[in-house]
Amino acid sequence: MDTDVSATKTLKVALLGAGNVGSQVARVLLDDAETLAARTGARLELVGIAVRNVDAPREVELPRELYTTDASALVRDADIVIELMGGLEPAKTLILEAIEHGATVVTGNKALLAVDGPALYEKADAAGVQLSYEAAVAGAIPILRPITDSLAGDKITRVMGIVNGTTNFILDAMDSTGAEFSDALAEATRLGYAEADPTADIEGHDAAAKGAILASLAFHTRFALEDVHCEGITGVTAGDIASAKEAGYVIKLLAIAEKISTPSKGGTDDAGRPASGVSVRVHPTLIPREHPLGAVRGAFNAVFVEAENAGELMFYGRGAGGAPTASAIMGDVVSAARRLVLGGPGRTDSTIEVLPVLPIDAVATRYYIGMDAADQPGVLSKIAALFAENGVSIETMRQTVHREPGEAAGPGSAELRFVTHRAGEAALAATVEAINGLDIINSITSVLRVEGV
Amino acid sequence: MDTDVSATKTLKVALLGAGNVGSQVARVLLDDAETLAARTGARLELVGIAVRNVDAPREVELPRELYTTDASALVRDADIVIELMGGLEPAKTLILEAIEHGATVVTGNKALLAVDGPALYEKADAAGVQLSYEAAVAGAIPILRPITDSLAGDKITRVMGIVNGTTNFILDAMDSTGAEFSDALAEATRLGYAEADPTADIEGHDAAAKGAILASLAFHTRFALEDVHCEGITGVTAGDIASAKEAGYVIKLLAIAEKISTPSKGGTDDAGRPASGVSVRVHPTLIPREHPLGAVRGAFNAVFVEAENAGELMFYGRGAGGAPTASAIMGDVVSAARRLVLGGPGRTDSTIEVLPVLPIDAVATRYYIGMDAADQPGVLSKIAALFAENGVSIETMRQTVHREPGEAAGPGSAELRFVTHRAGEAALAATVEAINGLDIINSITSVLRVEGV
Repeated sequence: MDTDVSATKTLKVALLGAGNVGSQVARVLLDDAETLAARTGARLELVGIAVRNVDAPREVELPRELYTTDASALVRDADIVIELMGGLEPAKTLILEAIEHGATVVTGNKALLAVDGPALYEKADAAGVQLSYEAAVAGAIPILRPITDSLAGDKITRVMGIVNGTTNFILDAMDSTGAEFSDALAEATRLGYAEADPTADIEGHDAAAKGAILASLAFHTRFALEDVHCEGITGVTAGDIASAKEAGYVIKLLAIAEKISTPSKGGTDDAGRPASGVSVRVHPTLIPREHPLGAVRGAFNAVFVEAENAGELMFYGRGAGGAPTASAIMGDVVSAARRLVLGGPGRTDSTIEVLPVLPIDAVATRYYIGMDAADQPGVLSKIAALFAENGVSIETMRQTVHREPGEAAGPGSAELRFVTHRAGEAALAATVEAINGLDIINSITSVLRVEGV
Repeated sequence: MDTDVSATKTLKVALLGAGNVGSQVARVLLDDAETLAARTGARLELVGIAVRNVDAPREVELPRELYTTDASALVRDADIVIELMGGLEPAKTLILEAIEHGATVVTGNKALLAVDGPALYEKADAAGVQLSYEAAVAGAIPILRPITDSLAGDKITRVMGIVNGTTNFILDAMDSTGAEFSDALAEATRLGYAEADPTADIEGHDAAAKGAILASLAFHTRFALEDVHCEGITGVTAGDIASAKEAGYVIKLLAIAEKISTPSKGGTDDAGRPASGVSVRVHPTLIPREHPLGAVRGAFNAVFVEAENAGELMFYGRGAGGAPTASAIMGDVVSAARRLVLGGPGRTDSTIEVLPVLPIDAVATRYYIGMDAADQPGVLSKIAALFAENGVSIETMRQTVHREPGEAAGPGSAELRFVTHRAGEAALAATVEAINGLDIINSITSVLRVEGV
């Protein structure tokens, strides 16, 4: 390399965890030492890798003397601590120890941040040390700096993310092949896109943890996992996907964080809720196929951001995997090292606001409702009357009659699919209940939210 | 706003230019003063707006006393200078004055940076001041920080950008409607997407300027406009678009910067060129319709990045317009203000490498070649032989015979379309010349490069 750098300073780097991501991070630290020194002005010395078992077989060959089981001793001796153990403990205790000893912390532990993030950020602020977590949000996709720095002079109004690769792979497979959920999940497991216990992915918990972090970044307010309304994809059927497709939509599991102002009187709305705040939610969502998020295929992730001045932005890339996640971790490590060498602010938390979290029933979205009805004259007018009674306005309606050619109305059934204008959760629920009570209705087949139109 | 900030420091901000972007920046500085103070820890005081004519009519109403014609005096009195005049002079002289006086400079002037960027960066480094230019690369899309910070621990191998909204609008319109170039350009002009003199856009000059900046960021080497091989879109026909579409491709004007290693002996290849270096080029390119760049419609921009560990990333958003560009400018202003308040490194230029620029004939890409041939037996074998003789290998071939139903071969013509494997510029040119010399060939209808497969 043609560089004109004398890296005189040495920074001690401790790595906690030697799994899929950790071993890739170690590989980069060892193999690219020269480039990293040129880019930071410091030699980044990997002083140790804390593992549970020093002798466990590992896929990536690393010098055996780096392994240690004494994570605590390692942390106390480091300038930069990279936490890639995952889970809540002992990760939390070790991060707190690192903060106490004044070490910069880089973590990819979204589960821990979603639960204990606010407490950890406060400890780091109080100690004047940096806590970086780019890898925790959407894997390799650089999203943290664009939101906190590039958009610092703008106001974000909404963030919608495909932040879980497993569920996007499953939904994409269902969309391409017409498979049912269980078959697509089996295929994802076979190909290694889903874990043996896929609960955290398919129930939306992983997406909810990332949604809490994204919302915190976008709205300068600290949100925790419990603030996120969460629905997974286990109830999405091949029929939902097929009729969404026919109507020009694709179903994605989205983590959505948006600023909402409700009609207010003196700071609260008619139901006594705060007049404005942030809704953070994860649910399967219909979006138009030509929407930028609609083109995100397979296990890829993407975060779509709407800001007052910038308009629509999207950030796309790999949300998981050893090397991609290691890239995000190393971006944080290099930034941390540059600051340790050159000085400068770690965090800029003077900007923290306190915006209330709005419950899901404060959210108005469009809805897609599919139903199976009797093939009789007057069905549509009865259903339309119930929409009107509940104040839910219909945007589009499609009807498919399942009838033999030449057959008269009567014995067959009709499939009806509505897309509504924006409606509140309560009004929609009341409409669906009323429609379901009609004797001409065989079943309500799907009720899904619609975004991006 | 719920913030706990006492913005005691005041930073004087000078604005040069009150056009489309400048007036939006002024509006944000005045309207969002409180938010900006909370986010930076300083009051950002707009001390003046340098214009050519104080009394000219303007779309955005701003306090008249802010306008001045003495840009030089304004610059000498400011902490942060925002240059939005465009063009080479007096922008360059004023930026140099600002640097001399120790002011931080934020600019969106891609034309100036492409020509004089290296000299300006050096002056800024020598003076120890910051020179920021996020808005110059792809309008509102945050691309500078992701590349310089988030990917600082990774190695970028290739960048491909749709960085000119006018040409993307034109090509997208041709793709959707089947229009010829001249009609799509007329429509773009009518809708305000193309300027009265569209030369800089349609000939690729604007994309080339952005390509030089993108390449400089991605490869830690300073590239100038003259390093960029540039072809515009004026030669792209409705026929090219239609046959690309039929084959599953879409034509986009891409700015491409990639690291290339050529087969080498002792540092140079057989032709005496450096064994490795960077190719920076702008040309119309076929990409698969399902590629993330293929979904970028209308006047939107996107930058697709390939890195060793992160894999494929894409950044999407508005590349132009007053408010979107103002968002990028204000991101730089807020970052600059934070550093002026809290201290810290402005630039991290220790990482500058010196990679040679490779000429276009060092680049090997796939090619799409369309031709109109006589409808005779043996045509294909003659053409295929010429590909083989020149060492260009065929990946796919499609043939469409224009013949009346039931008509025998002979009087009609056949349309042949080839996609090659990777081939060098010289081998491809020799192949095309040889094919064109066959008496069975009526015309070569298109020769276009293919990426993203």
